[in-house]
Amino acid sequence: MLLYYFDLAGVAVFSASGVLAARDRDLDLLGVIVVAVMTAIGGGTLRDLLLDRHPIFWVTDSWYLIVIIASALLTVAYVRRWPPPVATLLVADALGLGLFALSGAQFAEAAQCPPLIVVLMGTMTGVFGGILRDVITAQIPLILRREIYATAAILGISLYLALQALGVPPAGAFGAGMSLVVALRLLAIRWGLNLPVFRQS
Amino acid sequence: MLLYYFDLAGVAVFSASGVLAARDRDLDLLGVIVVAVMTAIGGGTLRDLLLDRHPIFWVTDSWYLIVIIASALLTVAYVRRWPPPVATLLVADALGLGLFALSGAQFAEAAQCPPLIVVLMGTMTGVFGGILRDVITAQIPLILRREIYATAAILGISLYLALQALGVPPAGAFGAGMSLVVALRLLAIRWGLNLPVFRQS
Amino acid sequence: MLLYYFDLAGVAVFSASGVLAARDRDLDLLGVIVVAVMTAIGGGTLRDLLLDRHPIFWVTDSWYLIVIIASALLTVAYVRRWPPPVATLLVADALGLGLFALSGAQFAEAAQCPPLIVVLMGTMTGVFGGILRDVITAQIPLILRREIYATAAILGISLYLALQALGVPPAGAFGAGMSLVVALRLLAIRWGLNLPVFRQS
Repeated sequence: MLLYYFDLAGVAVFSASGVLAARDRDLDLLGVIVVAVMTAIGGGTLRDLLLDRHPIFWVTDSWYLIVIIASALLTVAYVRRWPPPVATLLVADALGLGLFALSGAQFAEAAQCPPLIVVLMGTMTGVFGGILRDVITAQIPLILRREIYATAAILGISLYLALQALGVPPAGAFGAGMSLVVALRLLAIRWGLNLPVFRQS
Repeated sequence: MLLYYFDLAGVAVFSASGVLAARDRDLDLLGVIVVAVMTAIGGGTLRDLLLDRHPIFWVTDSWYLIVIIASALLTVAYVRRWPPPVATLLVADALGLGLFALSGAQFAEAAQCPPLIVVLMGTMTGVFGGILRDVITAQIPLILRREIYATAAILGISLYLALQALGVPPAGAFGAGMSLVVALRLLAIRWGLNLPVFRQS
Repeated sequence: MLLYYFDLAGVAVFSASGVLAARDRDLDLLGVIVVAVMTAIGGGTLRDLLLDRHPIFWVTDSWYLIVIIASALLTVAYVRRWPPPVATLLVADALGLGLFALSGAQFAEAAQCPPLIVVLMGTMTGVFGGILRDVITAQIPLILRREIYATAAILGISLYLALQALGVPPAGAFGAGMSLVVALRLLAIRWGLNLPVFRQS
């Protein structure tokens, strides 16, 4: 039940990040909402399709869509008046990433995926919405270029699996993994950490 | 049965719009046909995947693909000689949008989706092919930027649901909803109506 | 069993081509691996989703992902030191295209698709990873623009179906079809063959 509220908080945050990405891209209001919806549900939808989990999480429960649209409208109203609260949003986005990455990993575990695939599936759940957001607004996905993003998800999920293998109960491992994702992400932003960029010799 | 012929007309129209979008983008003939196919089947394929309807509508019925390819080739042949019949195509595209939006809504209703999700699913069915078309040809989707497009689908589907709630039989509600989509779309084009563009203050 | 090793070889080749496409696009190392993974599994994943084949081919078998990541890392290490072995990679890519196209066609046949859809499904399996690769790196897909690529897949699968209709056993038809794909592709590169580009009159 707690996870369900976490999930709603996660889609709300990703919806706001979709709205911010859509600024100044010459989209109309509804276009902005479409980008927000795709950012928020993209990762979980891909996860459910790949794992053959039906109904898809938002298909029979209106609350996800209601929360996403409300969050998008509030964000639109806010940024028309004030500069976006960047720091708050980065923290919220890190929480969303951690949450989706770990919950995606749990679903993959429940579907009997081997550990490496659990890591992949959790990472995809965490980052795919942001990739969609950037592809639709015709940018090379930020996630693939900046700071420790997918990396944070991979390390957090790996910790989650390692702790479980050592006998830690799932809830504790989940909390530890998610905390690692959030901490890595925020430290990377704070100190401007990046993986080396790949260029040809 | 009538709906089946409507459906074939819908994919034919979207195929032609895919060909027109692919002009002057340095694609070869087969690339143009690929874009036409993705534009025509994109929305319905996403709908079937999300609702877990298998086989996907075109997977066991060759007629969709035959109609799409024939329409694409005719459009190619036509526009190599004459300027594209823009007005005709806009009317046809409005009909295609209305048809796919309402039929997508009906499938979502049949899958027990709540009303808000019915609206989302119908709208996605109507507009996703066009989004794919624009993403592949590396443009920010027109649908998210111009005139009343997804808006028309949303209002038409809402009318369809409202009329059914008032006791109107499905066929009548379908016709009314589809007419509203087409009318809104054509009026928006005629009068240059747009939703306000979203820019930061 | 042989097909399984072919398949692993196919994803390895596509992974390398993903890494090469991601060069100089300002991606970090993990971003490059993400592009490699999407290029390698994109076509087969779409095939499995559309044909409702679960589990998706890589979801319960870690070897695909291991091979893809190893191939991506080797390619990164190689091209940081030496110029990429273009000729070798083009041959390998042609083999990968032929293999995926024909195996996609076989799966579609097993799912009772009519012949035209078998051709479409095989072609999509062969080319979709490359389309994803180009969309993510924000380019108009090369596959839609250059030389005989999807065309080679279409003709090879058609040969495969024709030979089977004439009574040739599947394995022989598979080999002939795949050989035709590879031969067409390599001849097209060698002689710079292109389909005519589509421009408006």
